[in-house]
Amino acid sequence: MEQISDGGITAAKGFRAAGLHCGVKKSHKDLALVVSDVPATAAGVFTTNRVAAAPVVLDRDLLKTTSAVRAIVVNSGNANACTGTQGMEDALYMAAQTADILGISTNEVLVSSTGVIGQRLPVAKITDGIKEAAQHLSIGGHLDAAEAIMTTDTFAKETAVKIRVNGHDVSIGGMAKGSGMIAPHMATLLVFVTTDVRISPQLLQQALRNASDRSFNRITVDGDTSTNDMVLVLANGLAGNAELCADHDPGFKEFCNALDTVMIALSKMIVMDGEGATKFVEIRVVGAHTNNEADTAARAIAHSSLVKTAINGEDANWGRILAAVGYSGIEFDPAETTINFGDVPILCRNYGIDFSEGDAKKVLQEREILLTVNLHQGDGEAVCWTCDLSREYVAINANYRT
Amino acid sequence: MEQISDGGITAAKGFRAAGLHCGVKKSHKDLALVVSDVPATAAGVFTTNRVAAAPVVLDRDLLKTTSAVRAIVVNSGNANACTGTQGMEDALYMAAQTADILGISTNEVLVSSTGVIGQRLPVAKITDGIKEAAQHLSIGGHLDAAEAIMTTDTFAKETAVKIRVNGHDVSIGGMAKGSGMIAPHMATLLVFVTTDVRISPQLLQQALRNASDRSFNRITVDGDTSTNDMVLVLANGLAGNAELCADHDPGFKEFCNALDTVMIALSKMIVMDGEGATKFVEIRVVGAHTNNEADTAARAIAHSSLVKTAINGEDANWGRILAAVGYSGIEFDPAETTINFGDVPILCRNYGIDFSEGDAKKVLQEREILLTVNLHQGDGEAVCWTCDLSREYVAINANYRT
Repeated sequence: MEQISDGGITAAKGFRAAGLHCGVKKSHKDLALVVSDVPATAAGVFTTNRVAAAPVVLDRDLLKTTSAVRAIVVNSGNANACTGTQGMEDALYMAAQTADILGISTNEVLVSSTGVIGQRLPVAKITDGIKEAAQHLSIGGHLDAAEAIMTTDTFAKETAVKIRVNGHDVSIGGMAKGSGMIAPHMATLLVFVTTDVRISPQLLQQALRNASDRSFNRITVDGDTSTNDMVLVLANGLAGNAELCADHDPGFKEFCNALDTVMIALSKMIVMDGEGATKFVEIRVVGAHTNNEADTAARAIAHSSLVKTAINGEDANWGRILAAVGYSGIEFDPAETTINFGDVPILCRNYGIDFSEGDAKKVLQEREILLTVNLHQGDGEAVCWTCDLSREYVAINANYRT
Repeated sequence: MEQISDGGITAAKGFRAAGLHCGVKKSHKDLALVVSDVPATAAGVFTTNRVAAAPVVLDRDLLKTTSAVRAIVVNSGNANACTGTQGMEDALYMAAQTADILGISTNEVLVSSTGVIGQRLPVAKITDGIKEAAQHLSIGGHLDAAEAIMTTDTFAKETAVKIRVNGHDVSIGGMAKGSGMIAPHMATLLVFVTTDVRISPQLLQQALRNASDRSFNRITVDGDTSTNDMVLVLANGLAGNAELCADHDPGFKEFCNALDTVMIALSKMIVMDGEGATKFVEIRVVGAHTNNEADTAARAIAHSSLVKTAINGEDANWGRILAAVGYSGIEFDPAETTINFGDVPILCRNYGIDFSEGDAKKVLQEREILLTVNLHQGDGEAVCWTCDLSREYVAINANYRT
């Protein structure tokens, strides 16, 4: 697998993009357009929040009946959430205008929004923006697009890789937005991935779901699931490979592996850019009875405000970690449990505590920290990524709306 | 029901208490002793955390075989948690020393600890403290005792009421420790209640469990359940009423009502004293299909860091509240949902938003805030108490251990 240093959402053949300011926000870029030269197979995963924003409802419905898509249009600055039937009309209007301007069908357009909720989408400004974006679509437009979907993100998030699938060069690239621990207005996490592989809709959906479980479902958003979360993938087949349509095809495994890489890289960028975050933390739970139990324990640790504040304070507070596993609900024996920060054993069996505060501090002063909990009772394991909880997080979220 | 302005844990007949500094902490009071003149019926509820501290294990086991208790001994400054078999021996030693000093049986002593975890209990200092406390037991010692169980609490928490049970005066008093949102080292919440009512062990346990559900289980501790949480009640029967032993006895209803009052008052004090908290928030969810669904929704709101930071910033961010209900997992229609802050309607049906920012601000500037969510679909309702999430909370928890 080869990393492509430049490309993002337009790294794969036949994709062009643009990003610009159309006036939803005061001055920053707020409209992104991504277009495939030919109809692309599409797949998506969406927020499980019952309060789903209009574009989520629209896209979810669309992908039930079609998987041939030409364009994704995204605005930031306004989430079009909690906007009722007017919001649905506005989302549909945004899709229809995009189709009209690009000369394609409304059923070939996916719509996405992020930003303030409960306010009507400024559709006239957005329409003007789409017209302008359509004139500036280019392979070089990937960074503009990645910037146009940002809200409180402090840097644009994109990545791309190149692989060989059954003898053909295939590229996968993507862009994402979202601010680590919790983004404003409920952790909105938008991810768009494009690839030139030829693949059946069923396999693409399967690959996306698996990759999501290994990437975006591994980062904590503090339980505050957004109304607008979505991950979309377009595969336009221009790589020229024979369609991947069997999950035992070695080419499919190769593709899944690369899709995982792209989505994990984007996930980690989101955590790195966490609101107020000063540290990236990988939490590994090993030696559990099952992978599921390891996952439950890892999430409990990753969600604990007490663990996250301790890491912010560079404090090797193993008691909070053990207690988080304790209330996670899994079966385990605390006396058998061991905890490492990096390579430093912090808690040994039978509550053995014999570490040097200096060694622990050295690990905790790093920007990236690995925390390993070994339950010593089986082969189950899981990983989670999170960030610390800082005073700045509170400052960012206390006064977002007003 | 009459509020007793002075008394706390010694308000009921036949209870004496003492609190003093014995050296577990550097300078603050750290040892409390509560003694009943006669054997008292005891009941307890304990943490559900699998990493249960030694005193929790000891008391839980003791209450399985006896309910005649004479004393409760409590130290702060050291939790005796994650201390293995040595910890169990130390907790038992603390009970045995108390029994020896008071001339009672070890089986008549309940033990409790709170503070730093993973360190051995300084049993010699504690034994000296128990000896001194035993010499200072008095009805006037209730405030010393309440102070001796504090950790990061900023004020001592005690309350008492007097009622008539089947023609007899009955008093119930209590003391508690715990710092609202999350106390250091996992939200340790200790509650001790004494009463002179005569009651069967089964009914006392039933009354305690119901009262806990209506009080301490209604305040959020952010999921970080402590290894040391416990609520203990002693009822010594000196009020002289015929033993309450049937749950249809009007005297039992009277008693339950008063126990609820005492425990709700202590719960609210704990939230008021929340770490870094500037506001007390009552969250009411009404109009749900069932009380259970209302409870689920209320807890999701109360646990949301985004809702809590918005309240800290005095921001009427109704979108975060609606989204929290959205991810709580209950069935509801967001378009039918209404939200009030105090008396001010913030969100009306069909996403109607037409409130004055000034009116909303006025409610949010108060120290105590009522937030009501009406789902308009049934008669289910629930209430939760929480506090805001402030920068100070992070500051308190980032560097607790070191």
